[in-house]
Amino acid sequence: MKLQKQAEVTEYKAAGFIEKYQQLVRETVIPYQYEVLCDNAGTEKSHVIENFKNAAKALRGEDVGDGFYGMVFQDSDAGKWLEAAAYSLASKRDPELEAKADGLIALIAAAQDSDGYLNTRFTIADRDKRWQNLLEGHELYCAGHMAEAAAAYYEATGKRKLLDVCLKNAEHIYKRFIEDGVEGYPGHPEIELAMMKLYRASGDERCLKIAEHFVNVRGVDPTYYRRERDSRDWTVWGNNADDNDYQQSVRPVREQSDATGHAVRAVYLYTAMADLASEQGDRELKAACERLWKSITQRKMYVTGGIGSTVHGEAFSVDYDLPSDTAYAETCASIGLMFFASRMLEGRADAKYADVMEQAFYNTVLAGMALDGKSFFYVNPLESVKGISEVAPTHRHTIPVRPGWYACACCPPNVARAVMSFGKYAYGENEDTAFCHLYAAGDINLKNGISFTCETGYPYDFTVTYNIRSDGRLAVRLPHWSRDTKLTLNGCDAEFELKDGYAYVNASAGDVLVLTLDGEPRYIRGSSKVPELSGKACICRGPLVYCFEDIDNGDKVLNLQLKAGGKVTVSEESPFEDTKALDVEALVSEDDGSLYSAVFPELKRFTAKAVPYYCRANRGNVNMRVWLPMQAYDKS
Amino acid sequence: MKLQKQAEVTEYKAAGFIEKYQQLVRETVIPYQYEVLCDNAGTEKSHVIENFKNAAKALRGEDVGDGFYGMVFQDSDAGKWLEAAAYSLASKRDPELEAKADGLIALIAAAQDSDGYLNTRFTIADRDKRWQNLLEGHELYCAGHMAEAAAAYYEATGKRKLLDVCLKNAEHIYKRFIEDGVEGYPGHPEIELAMMKLYRASGDERCLKIAEHFVNVRGVDPTYYRRERDSRDWTVWGNNADDNDYQQSVRPVREQSDATGHAVRAVYLYTAMADLASEQGDRELKAACERLWKSITQRKMYVTGGIGSTVHGEAFSVDYDLPSDTAYAETCASIGLMFFASRMLEGRADAKYADVMEQAFYNTVLAGMALDGKSFFYVNPLESVKGISEVAPTHRHTIPVRPGWYACACCPPNVARAVMSFGKYAYGENEDTAFCHLYAAGDINLKNGISFTCETGYPYDFTVTYNIRSDGRLAVRLPHWSRDTKLTLNGCDAEFELKDGYAYVNASAGDVLVLTLDGEPRYIRGSSKVPELSGKACICRGPLVYCFEDIDNGDKVLNLQLKAGGKVTVSEESPFEDTKALDVEALVSEDDGSLYSAVFPELKRFTAKAVPYYCRANRGNVNMRVWLPMQAYDKS
Repeated sequence: MKLQKQAEVTEYKAAGFIEKYQQLVRETVIPYQYEVLCDNAGTEKSHVIENFKNAAKALRGEDVGDGFYGMVFQDSDAGKWLEAAAYSLASKRDPELEAKADGLIALIAAAQDSDGYLNTRFTIADRDKRWQNLLEGHELYCAGHMAEAAAAYYEATGKRKLLDVCLKNAEHIYKRFIEDGVEGYPGHPEIELAMMKLYRASGDERCLKIAEHFVNVRGVDPTYYRRERDSRDWTVWGNNADDNDYQQSVRPVREQSDATGHAVRAVYLYTAMADLASEQGDRELKAACERLWKSITQRKMYVTGGIGSTVHGEAFSVDYDLPSDTAYAETCASIGLMFFASRMLEGRADAKYADVMEQAFYNTVLAGMALDGKSFFYVNPLESVKGISEVAPTHRHTIPVRPGWYACACCPPNVARAVMSFGKYAYGENEDTAFCHLYAAGDINLKNGISFTCETGYPYDFTVTYNIRSDGRLAVRLPHWSRDTKLTLNGCDAEFELKDGYAYVNASAGDVLVLTLDGEPRYIRGSSKVPELSGKACICRGPLVYCFEDIDNGDKVLNLQLKAGGKVTVSEESPFEDTKALDVEALVSEDDGSLYSAVFPELKRFTAKAVPYYCRANRGNVNMRVWLPMQAYDKS
Repeated sequence: MKLQKQAEVTEYKAAGFIEKYQQLVRETVIPYQYEVLCDNAGTEKSHVIENFKNAAKALRGEDVGDGFYGMVFQDSDAGKWLEAAAYSLASKRDPELEAKADGLIALIAAAQDSDGYLNTRFTIADRDKRWQNLLEGHELYCAGHMAEAAAAYYEATGKRKLLDVCLKNAEHIYKRFIEDGVEGYPGHPEIELAMMKLYRASGDERCLKIAEHFVNVRGVDPTYYRRERDSRDWTVWGNNADDNDYQQSVRPVREQSDATGHAVRAVYLYTAMADLASEQGDRELKAACERLWKSITQRKMYVTGGIGSTVHGEAFSVDYDLPSDTAYAETCASIGLMFFASRMLEGRADAKYADVMEQAFYNTVLAGMALDGKSFFYVNPLESVKGISEVAPTHRHTIPVRPGWYACACCPPNVARAVMSFGKYAYGENEDTAFCHLYAAGDINLKNGISFTCETGYPYDFTVTYNIRSDGRLAVRLPHWSRDTKLTLNGCDAEFELKDGYAYVNASAGDVLVLTLDGEPRYIRGSSKVPELSGKACICRGPLVYCFEDIDNGDKVLNLQLKAGGKVTVSEESPFEDTKALDVEALVSEDDGSLYSAVFPELKRFTAKAVPYYCRANRGNVNMRVWLPMQAYDKS
């Protein structure tokens, strides 16, 4: 099979579930986040736009004093917002939004130094400190986010201004690190995946070379960060330069097998590795990606697609250390896992990648945002208990209700861009095939000429209808969780070739291809190697993980137990619009409150209500659990 | 009922289980720890004895340079060792040990300043810094441990030298903090409980006043530590002077209700409060003690009697936050809980105090020491998993196998003194009654004239025979866990008055009083308010909590589940000498190793073996669990 690419969808008009989310992001999140960038939202100061203005002034020789404010990576918020705006414009014209974006791009362009350098932190002040601190400085990280925005904005609008800014910036980076051979690689990977995108948007081979360079040089000399630290007299946060695990630089990436360190950094790096491996047919690099994929998805991932289980370094822990209550499981890390999955899919259409991509999206990624689009989670635990979550010393990070904004505002704009570019994850293509990785309702027109619509109420309905508008081959994913899957073409069983979990069907214009997936709720268990999950089960339906909240269960979530074989049915009513809750034949106990006792309370039948995990915490601070103890033993 | 006191046992000759432990401490632990103090044990440098020598030299005007080594509280190791040695000498003469102790006492006496000040850290150097840092300096803490040793040594040997040193030191403290009215109270409580002991040993009222003063002044002005910090230009560890929770000084102790902060500090303080309240008939103070007792034992205590569940500050967490795997549950904190319980018992003989005292001793305290007396745990989790314990970022403190010694060597000598003074916890007395709080075999001769022997194989046998040698009243505790308790006097049902869980029996010389407790193993559940314990059970027998180790269970501990009603019988063989293991009708599952799956493995019958928790980790690093998921549901 030929290599398939992320869909270069000229027009993906979302419908159904995805459209509703895109509308929320378009109408609520993107405008709100713009106000944040402008410091008009009444949230903690962002200063992003002011930083660009001040950098331009500084370049003109004006004294801007303490003109920079924010994190060292503050510029990246502009990049992420522009990228989300670009995807929004690609799906729906909006002159007002485009004008805002153009205005911001003009400010960014004005803040670029004559040599191509672009970063407000080291332009407003400390110009002599440029490139001194790759460990913490985030210059390449910010450059990457701007390049991702540039590629997306160019694709969406055809406007080159930001693209040219970023290409000039890339030229600067190319000269320094490749032509001049200056040592170093970024503490936070991002430039690598971004340069792959900029390369595809612009065709500029130097971008590809930059990506290749930073991927290949990483970890070859693990003493780099220590030497860098010793060579300068300043630091941003005092990061441990010897913690190569944290920054994925213990050894060359081709030799890595264990997903370690800061989870977002890790998956951003692996994304670039996978992309580059496919682009260059690099089997050794691909093999490393496969090992890292396995490490994450078979030993270090929550059932919600959350990764990076520990707050210590926002990092991957050791294998099977997946606590529910103290989980970090950063929203951005799951978005990064989607990136990684989509690049693995580009190398080989295997349903295992798409399954995980979907798992991350419908659970941890969507949970990152409130249903009204106005508040956001960084941290996505699988259990929340009033009086312990956020309060206990080990649980300070597990805030039970989404805050409106964060000083370190990485997750909210990341959710926005993931939602707005959903079509890129849902569909892929190569010369003769349309890949349907995810079931995303809408209108699909691919560059390879294949065109169809997709109708579905997924993830709450399990019939997916493809109305084919052009002759061509469709590769439709059959998810691992669907025990009963049907595929019909014009009402008859479809003939298809099954490969790696994809059904390859030849279709003609006018054909109607209908995929029927298994919508039965299912009990899921964890491996016995995960201590947290002994004797427990959770409930999933389609790609959705469900959870139990006190508010739906008479404040009895901590007393609930599942029973093997307990019927799970779709509720007639759901607390949330356009969603389905589940009624679960469960058990409840009521103890006398004594801390320890030899008297075991009776387990009584109880119909518990479960709601999708991503809907959690939209009704205040309530006890919540994904995993419940399960009674499985039949005495007889 | 009249106030009853900790037994002033002139002669408690232990037998049975306790004697075996005392012998271990006498023959192995005390000699070993002496070698540590002398830096002859081949462990990390202790320097305790060198510090005293150097302090004496410094007082003579000799230059000792960097003559102090160790923690700021290094002197306290000498006090704890001397105290354990004193108890050992009280139970068995040993001229060699007494000579060593006398030698050390001479060194200590020589290190005392002419004004009574006694602390090597601020004598060898930094004399101008004395009393500047009550928050961190541990001067009062060290004074307390020396005073405890002095009281015990005087009681054991009649020798006054250390007593006089400590009385002179107390005079110094009295002058400064009471006569001169210098503000302040100790960061680490200890002086308070110690001064109560020194008062009783010496009759010096100033000791009582010191205890009273530091109890009453604590937390009255919570800004004290901040002002103290601001008034000096040095720190030991940079402790947070505003963290009044940590140091139990948010409010006056009489107004406290919630056990917070560093667990050892907390229970040392509460011990003194309880002692003082009984001594002075102070109802308000006693009420505070009752509230704090409830806070600990009803909301913050492990089933093993471990307290202080979080590594963050070695502290109490919020209510019901009792994780098994990341538990801190310091050995010393459980020893402190025994202190607190014994003082509460002195105020009122209520079995609830003795039950907890016993729970702490037979589980967490004994678990603090290896069966051979040669290695020690600080931290006592209720679950240990290879590859996660000690390795995961949140589990660094949960070392799976006892190390030989610690730089901060508080727990090992604390275990030694708890074991050696077991008689003081086991027996109490007032004018006309002998209180049998714990079932400790041996010969008991009380100051009030009551004399008897106790024969029992407890905690592995549940018959306790008291052979009465003098007329008098015995108050025998009936533990809450014994569902089937019998008490006979000379073979017939004994007549007794039951009050607060104690059976009061009038006996005469020659009588044989036999208590038969319930030796049936029992399943225990936790409150549904403890998230960690949902759907789980553990197994206890008598005071012993049992645990499951991989080595006895075919490496299947993580796959084990209990079943309600599953028979538990005493094993014919135990892996450890003079102990009983249990055979448990349990269930085992074997999954395919996949991280998540909709396929649930069958639960098969499996006879699991449980061993006493205190015996854990004596056979290398193995998976261990106290709590297991329990299958309780009967489908029918």
